[in-house]
This record gives sequence, C-alpha cells and structure tokens, in this order.
Amino acid sequence: MRIGILGAGQLGRMLALAGYPLGHTFSFFDVSEGTPCRDLGSLTIGRFEDEGTLKKFAAQCDVITYEFENVPCSAAHQLAEIVPVYPPPRALEVSQDRLTEKEFLQGLDIGTPRFRPANSEQELRDACSLLGLPCMVKTRRFGYDGKGQRMIEELDSVATTWRDLGGAPLIVEGFVPFSRELSVVAVRSKDGEVLTYPLAQNDHRNGILHRSEMPAPELTPELRRSAQAIATKVLVALDYVGVVALELFHVRGELLANEIAPRVHNSGHSTIDGVITSQFENHIRAITGMPLGSVEPHARAVMFNLIGAIPPLDALSTIPNAKLHLYGKSPRPGRKLGHITLLNPSAQDEARIERTIESGSMS
Amino acid sequence: MRIGILGAGQLGRMLALAGYPLGHTFSFFDVSEGTPCRDLGSLTIGRFEDEGTLKKFAAQCDVITYEFENVPCSAAHQLAEIVPVYPPPRALEVSQDRLTEKEFLQGLDIGTPRFRPANSEQELRDACSLLGLPCMVKTRRFGYDGKGQRMIEELDSVATTWRDLGGAPLIVEGFVPFSRELSVVAVRSKDGEVLTYPLAQNDHRNGILHRSEMPAPELTPELRRSAQAIATKVLVALDYVGVVALELFHVRGELLANEIAPRVHNSGHSTIDGVITSQFENHIRAITGMPLGSVEPHARAVMFNLIGAIPPLDALSTIPNAKLHLYGKSPRPGRKLGHITLLNPSAQDEARIERTIESGSMS
Repeated sequence: MRIGILGAGQLGRMLALAGYPLGHTFSFFDVSEGTPCRDLGSLTIGRFEDEGTLKKFAAQCDVITYEFENVPCSAAHQLAEIVPVYPPPRALEVSQDRLTEKEFLQGLDIGTPRFRPANSEQELRDACSLLGLPCMVKTRRFGYDGKGQRMIEELDSVATTWRDLGGAPLIVEGFVPFSRELSVVAVRSKDGEVLTYPLAQNDHRNGILHRSEMPAPELTPELRRSAQAIATKVLVALDYVGVVALELFHVRGELLANEIAPRVHNSGHSTIDGVITSQFENHIRAITGMPLGSVEPHARAVMFNLIGAIPPLDALSTIPNAKLHLYGKSPRPGRKLGHITLLNPSAQDEARIERTIESGSMS
Repeated sequence: MRIGILGAGQLGRMLALAGYPLGHTFSFFDVSEGTPCRDLGSLTIGRFEDEGTLKKFAAQCDVITYEFENVPCSAAHQLAEIVPVYPPPRALEVSQDRLTEKEFLQGLDIGTPRFRPANSEQELRDACSLLGLPCMVKTRRFGYDGKGQRMIEELDSVATTWRDLGGAPLIVEGFVPFSRELSVVAVRSKDGEVLTYPLAQNDHRNGILHRSEMPAPELTPELRRSAQAIATKVLVALDYVGVVALELFHVRGELLANEIAPRVHNSGHSTIDGVITSQFENHIRAITGMPLGSVEPHARAVMFNLIGAIPPLDALSTIPNAKLHLYGKSPRPGRKLGHITLLNPSAQDEARIERTIESGSMS
C-alpha cells in the first residue's frame, strides 16, 4: 500500500523504516521541508488549509495517518472523505484540547488530576483557589514538550501567568504528588484487537523526555491491569485504529491519566530494539489491516533522547548493546536529534551513556 | 555520510534500512531499474563500463560498497580512485572466480573440497577420473543460486555437461559427503576488529536457500572456534572492511570452505531480528568507520525465504513472533520476494509457516 503520513519528522521517518519491510511505500505531507523523511518517500509541502493540495495528496495514498496531533481536524475530515484516515479524526479533536481530553477521560471513568477551565484572569484565580496551590496551568491547545505550561505556587503570580500564556483559554490542574511518570503505548487493529506494551517509566528534563525505561521497574500485576484497562477504554471509545500513547501519573498505588497522544510516542521508541514488534510496525500493521505483532519485550530497554547535539559516536563502542537512532536533522538547541536505546544496561552503562550524551551536548 | 551502493536489490534495500538510523543517506547504482531501493535514496541507472557515469556517481558518495559480487573489478578500481570502496576490490577478484577463490583459501591453509580446473571436455573427463565420481562441476564465473552447476555421476555424461555449461572454463570439485551446510557471517572494522556471528545452518531447495537457522543446532566450541579462525584468516588476508559470508560444509566434524561472498548474505538475514546488531548495520558501521556493534543473539532465529509468491499475510497472525521482510519486488517464479524470520519457534510454528509459504507459492 501507499501510506500517506501527515508530518515528515522523526516519527514519520521511523514509521517508514518500519513499514518498508512490510512491503509499503510512503508519501509525506508537511508545512515545511522536513529533513527526517526527505529520502524515504515522496514529500508534499503545503498548507493544511489548501484543499486542492490535500486532495492531490489523498489521491496518491491508500490510507493516511499522522505523526503529530496538531493536524487541523478540518484537514483530517476532508482527507477522510477521499481515503481512510487512521487514527479516526475524532481522536485529534479529543487530544488537541486539554479540556476536551480531560472531560473525555472523566466520561470514561478514568482517573485524572482534578481540573478546571479558565478563560479569564479571574477564572484562573478562582480555579487556583478552588484546586489549591501549587497547581499546573496549561494552554488548552498547542502545548508540547512543556511548552505553554506554568506552575503557579502563589496567587500573586496569577496575573503574570495569565499574561505569559497569552490570554489563551487555559486548563488548571490540581497538583498531583505523583511518585513517578509512566506511560502506556497500546494499539488497536481494524478488527478491534487491542495489545498493550509494557508500561514505561519516564524522566523529563526541562520539560522534555530525557530517559524512558520499558518495562518500568517495580510493576505489579495490578498496575499492568489498570494501564491495560485505561488504554482499552480509550481505544474502544474512539473506535480507534493504530497506536495510542497515554501519559500517566503513578500516585499512591493508582494511575491517573494526564494526556492522550493519538500517535506513536517518544516513550515507545525503546520498542524498536526491546520488543518483538515495535510501536511503529504495529501502527503500520493496524492501519493497513494486518494482524498485530507480538508486544512481548525481549530485553529491558532504556532509551535516552539526544537533544541539541549528537554525542561522539566512537564513545558508543564502550557501551555494550547501545542502539543508535538518528533522525537526519541538523543540530539546534533543544531539538530532538535522535535517541539511543540500551538493552539490559548496568548502572555503569547508564552512567557512561549519560556522560557521553552530556559531552555531546556541550560540543 | 552519503553511502553509494552498487546494486539496488534487496540487499541494498536492507543496508539502507539499517543505515538510516545511523544518520546516513544512500545513492544506488544499477544496470536496470531495481524496485527494492527505488524509494530509499537516489538511483543511477548506468553501465559499469561507462566511466563518465561511474565518475558522476562516485562524486555523490563519501564511501562506496556493493551488494553483489559480480561488479566488474575494473569498475570497482575506477571508483576506488575517487572515493573509498569497501570491501576492497581485491575481494571481488577473489570471489568472482571459483578457481581463484579455492586457490586463495588453499593458500591460507583453509580446508576446501578437492578441486581441479577444466578448460576442455578432455580436462573435464580427466578431472572427474582423478577426483572420482560423483563430482560437482561449476562454471568458474557468474554462478549463483545453483546456476551454472551440474553433478556428474557417470563419465558418460561428461560431454553433455561440457556442452550444457556452454564450454566455459570450469572447476570440478570432489564430492563431499557433508552432514550439513553451515555458513558464517563475519565483519571487520577499519581498525581491524573482527566479530563473528553465530554459525547458521542452511537448507536449500532447487539450489536456492530455503531455510536458515542461527545459531545452528548442535554447535560445539570447536566448530565455533574453527569458523572464527577461517573467517578471520580470510578477512585479514584481504585487509577486508565490511561483512563477509563463508559457505561451509560440515563433514566428519570438520569445516570445509566452499564459497566466499564479499557482502551481506541471505543466511545472515535472521540477524535483523535475532541478533543485537544485524549484518546490515555492522556492514554500514564498518565501512563508515564506526565501532562495530554486538553480534550476540537474543533468540534462536529461523529464516524462510519467500520465493516466487508472497503467502497470505493474514496467516502470519497464527504464528507467534514471525517477522516479515518484503523486498518491494513483483512476483515471478524463482524470485526472492522477501523472507520471514521466526524467533524461538516450536516445531509446530515451523510446520505452520512451511504450509503458509507453500500455499502462497501455489497461488
């Protein structure tokens, strides 16, 4: 099949690399020249508002998917009139607005942090008072990697925060004293089969994912069942096809859902090397109507993002079982340029890779 | 780096798929439009005798390698004047002529089947008498997948065989009562580091590889050491950089070398799914000067070629841990269209995949 991907970044790249062995070819659509996918298929540069370009793109494809959740819903709906679009555009609607998202989760009886909308400085102040301080304030739309978020620790900073976030509609979330951040990547086939990858444990730095470990340490059967139940509810409610990722807080033995990513996810990158079927391959299998592949891990996989700089590759030789994944992007501060996955690493291996990455970041 | 690959078939395809995550891009050179690599880089169609086209191709590349051993040596030498070519062109010279190859192995004190050249019908008859019947007769050049080979069982068929093989220079090999065919894939870095994958056991049908299992069953430490020693001798003698594959006969507890493939090899395909670093990735690492990656297997991997037809993919769902690799080629009898690797399969899994492949072949 010819698979169309909206977005031509690293997720599109890894989808294509997983899809070629299944016999597929790829067309990418992006608003600007995206280097990660340049050599891996045809690339259409256009605006999501340009109906003509969208139609021409759709005509090339047997099925369309997306690699980022800020695809305008109108574009997804237009494309879906011509060719199947998976995950369903409804998943975009839900996940593009943090308020809709939380209400959707609540409607499914899935625990979330307590939340309130705020459309004015006064409403922001009221929400903070109601939920108690500290609390997290986020723009309802277009936030990622910690962008569009502020922590409010005292009511004095409400006015500044309102201004800083551009007077945009907000969601205010009660502080969650979580012990760790977990995520679950799951996939649903056209036939409705659901498979759930092992939970991953995620550590962020400056709001960007730094390290992700799969399976997360200290998993209990209850945690696993709970994550599976949450993922399944979301997938079924959206009549979903493809991979979804849910960011979760582990708090007092329970899981609270924080965010839905209707796509392959950074915390699932370790599935390329640590699991029999990667999230990328299973996404392609799902949207093309193939049966899903096994999500059994064959190693404990620890992934580190390469942000802003690529460390000296020779140093990798001193770290056993390090798998490198570069995205073909030129270095720029804060930019995700690649990731490295260590299989069954020792504490020393991890320390060594952290130092190596650190040395690269300073270069 | 921009990596040039001579040949744009499935081996070039799998090299590119392994090389993109390392940050490289690819240019392919072939004598005809090869579909497997069409979408994975730029493609130059030309003749190996056309110096201008070769030069233009070389100018695009930082390093050049090849995916088949019948690249004319003159072309490899011309390219090597402009840009590094790995493996060294000398490896082509040795492996393109079965007589040179056997003499090279003999010169390194590596055991081979007994052999004799034959440049006339009379010499063929003499060689058969000397080596005893039955014996294998092969054209010295351009044989692959069982092509250009005949078994002679009685002297009466000498004349027919000489005619059938087109009166080309031949090598006659004494019959080897081998218990099984093994192969060893090894890789040498620019620094001279040598790593050897576990031995694979290979079964052919109609002269084409049908099934390959890695690690081969019933491996003794002696066998492993012997294969490593043979591979290391060959790699060092050729001052080799990249992956080599050696076809071996296991006979009376010993290994005899039958053939050198100066490239990634069909019997190493299972390394994609069963070993931490695949033969394709290690070839790219070697020729780009990166340290080699671990060749430790994490599963027993059994590979089946898909020849002539692609079986119904839905059937894969009933076979756990089956990894599919299609080459983007249109079906044609006898053509390698892809392969399937099973990880830690049961006998039932194997029987099921054989039936599935069989059903595809009949469609």
